[in-house]
Amino acid sequence: MRIGILGGGQLGKMLVLAGVPLGLNFQIYDPDDSCCARNLAPTIHGDFQDQTLLQQFAESVDVITYENENIPGDSIRFLQQFKRVVPGIKAIEITQDRLLEKECLQALHIPTTAFVAINNQQDVSQAAALLGYPFLIKTRRHGYDGKGQLIIHGDSDLTTVPDTLLNRPCIAEKWVDYRREFSVISVSAPSSQVIFYDLCENVHQKGILHTTHNKPNDQALLAVVPYIKNLIQAFSYQGVMAVEFFEDLACNYIVNEIAPRVHNSGHWTIEGAYTSQFQNHLRAILDWPLGNTASRSLVRMQNLIGTLQNTEDLLKHNDSYIHLYGKAEKSGRKLGHITTII
Amino acid sequence: MRIGILGGGQLGKMLVLAGVPLGLNFQIYDPDDSCCARNLAPTIHGDFQDQTLLQQFAESVDVITYENENIPGDSIRFLQQFKRVVPGIKAIEITQDRLLEKECLQALHIPTTAFVAINNQQDVSQAAALLGYPFLIKTRRHGYDGKGQLIIHGDSDLTTVPDTLLNRPCIAEKWVDYRREFSVISVSAPSSQVIFYDLCENVHQKGILHTTHNKPNDQALLAVVPYIKNLIQAFSYQGVMAVEFFEDLACNYIVNEIAPRVHNSGHWTIEGAYTSQFQNHLRAILDWPLGNTASRSLVRMQNLIGTLQNTEDLLKHNDSYIHLYGKAEKSGRKLGHITTII
Repeated sequence: MRIGILGGGQLGKMLVLAGVPLGLNFQIYDPDDSCCARNLAPTIHGDFQDQTLLQQFAESVDVITYENENIPGDSIRFLQQFKRVVPGIKAIEITQDRLLEKECLQALHIPTTAFVAINNQQDVSQAAALLGYPFLIKTRRHGYDGKGQLIIHGDSDLTTVPDTLLNRPCIAEKWVDYRREFSVISVSAPSSQVIFYDLCENVHQKGILHTTHNKPNDQALLAVVPYIKNLIQAFSYQGVMAVEFFEDLACNYIVNEIAPRVHNSGHWTIEGAYTSQFQNHLRAILDWPLGNTASRSLVRMQNLIGTLQNTEDLLKHNDSYIHLYGKAEKSGRKLGHITTII
Repeated sequence: MRIGILGGGQLGKMLVLAGVPLGLNFQIYDPDDSCCARNLAPTIHGDFQDQTLLQQFAESVDVITYENENIPGDSIRFLQQFKRVVPGIKAIEITQDRLLEKECLQALHIPTTAFVAINNQQDVSQAAALLGYPFLIKTRRHGYDGKGQLIIHGDSDLTTVPDTLLNRPCIAEKWVDYRREFSVISVSAPSSQVIFYDLCENVHQKGILHTTHNKPNDQALLAVVPYIKNLIQAFSYQGVMAVEFFEDLACNYIVNEIAPRVHNSGHWTIEGAYTSQFQNHLRAILDWPLGNTASRSLVRMQNLIGTLQNTEDLLKHNDSYIHLYGKAEKSGRKLGHITTII
């Protein structure tokens, strides 16, 4: 059985590492010829618009999945002519656009923050009137790790929004004062079975996930499960989905973002749960029995961002597991993570 | 850092899977062009006598290790001109020859069963007189998983030893009546640090390891540690070493075999210990800090031999971890293993 993965970043790499022991083979497709999964599986380096290479990719595999939701919907539709692409087109098209995502949540009566579409400077002023300060302006597409975001604190910020942002379709979102941020990682199988990992609390720094730790028996999980099941049904979803929440000052649970894929806040599951999110995603898309999502230990996952200590120094932490992605150092780039049993 | 591995079987594959998260790259050398690690790392398919390919291999890596002790000593010596080969030449030359291994144990005053060299039919009769019945005849080299072995129960078996066996240098070993078999997996670093995993009890069937389970706090470990430290010192050993023991009916501990490499009876460490034997072998040969060898859970490892159920059925065991090696089915061949938390 050969799995095609759209995207060969660290998530693709960890999918391969989780799938090889199950006897699976892989084929990566990534435009970047230095993508970090390239050494672990045959890799086609092509643009997502290149139909010749996409067809070659599709014909070489049994099923296609993705590690990144920023793949053009048309490319997914083209690939679907040849092979099954899971999770499907609906989840990817909605979640790759912050406005469509928020509208979808609203339509499904799932709590999310107030928002408004932004297409020009005038919309920014209207957003201020509608949402109040502070609010965030984000590009609708291709933002991650805090990129393509700006916070508007008051009137004086209204006219300073750079054209580089406003030249692209944006969304304004009301700022949420929150007690904590957490993620829920779900796994859904075609049988309609849905299982959940323990909730994990996240700490972000400069818009990038910094640490995550799992919280068995946290009551918030029970409260948000219906929202996630609702999304899974609406998307006819199969595989791992991560949903980020805010718990606001009034203890309401508000969806921040949906990731239709394995997710950074689920990396703790490699050592912290009985079955990792990566292996369960593969099992789910193949309609194989899902693995146990229970926590095996309390763990803390910390991202290694921008620069790295040398490996020898990292390994001195005897109770930690090191995961390096093989990427060059760069400010704000996720280069690896370290999971510690606590 | 690029690690060269001589041999691309399942042990090589699991070394790669353990090393990639540490940021390591790999280069495999294996004569078999269908060896199961070939998809995970660049692989040179060459004979172990091919000095051109061996040199090319050595020049492409930073350090060389092996997953198989049946590599000609001359090939190791040739490679050593270019790069460090660990564990070194001494361990490999002694342990690849059952007679040299037994003589080495004897010289170091480490208990092993009585033995005698066999070069012809006359030696077989002398062995019977020296050792008594039953005794085993084994080829000195290249035997594994019970291959190249014969048990001699009494006088009537003496003349039936096939020429295919006697055409090669052999050893006769006195049969040991044992209460149990167990292995000890050690990890030794250049700093002279030696650490041990919990002892694991083994059950063999038809000469092939069938199951292993870890036994924390088993007193036998303390009794055999001095023997293993003795071997490590004698070989100037660096890396993982597995030593198989019999506990005889009088509760003596008798060395059966030494493996100068990661070993099948250590596969339980992937999920059963905090750091696997594979990752610790890599750390040891690089002189990096060693990882915690303590058991994380009680586990049972079972080999999948000869034929495989389909993966879907294997995955129905919710408390188990599946490891498939990607090898074709064949009677007596190790195709994978399954580790269960007990």
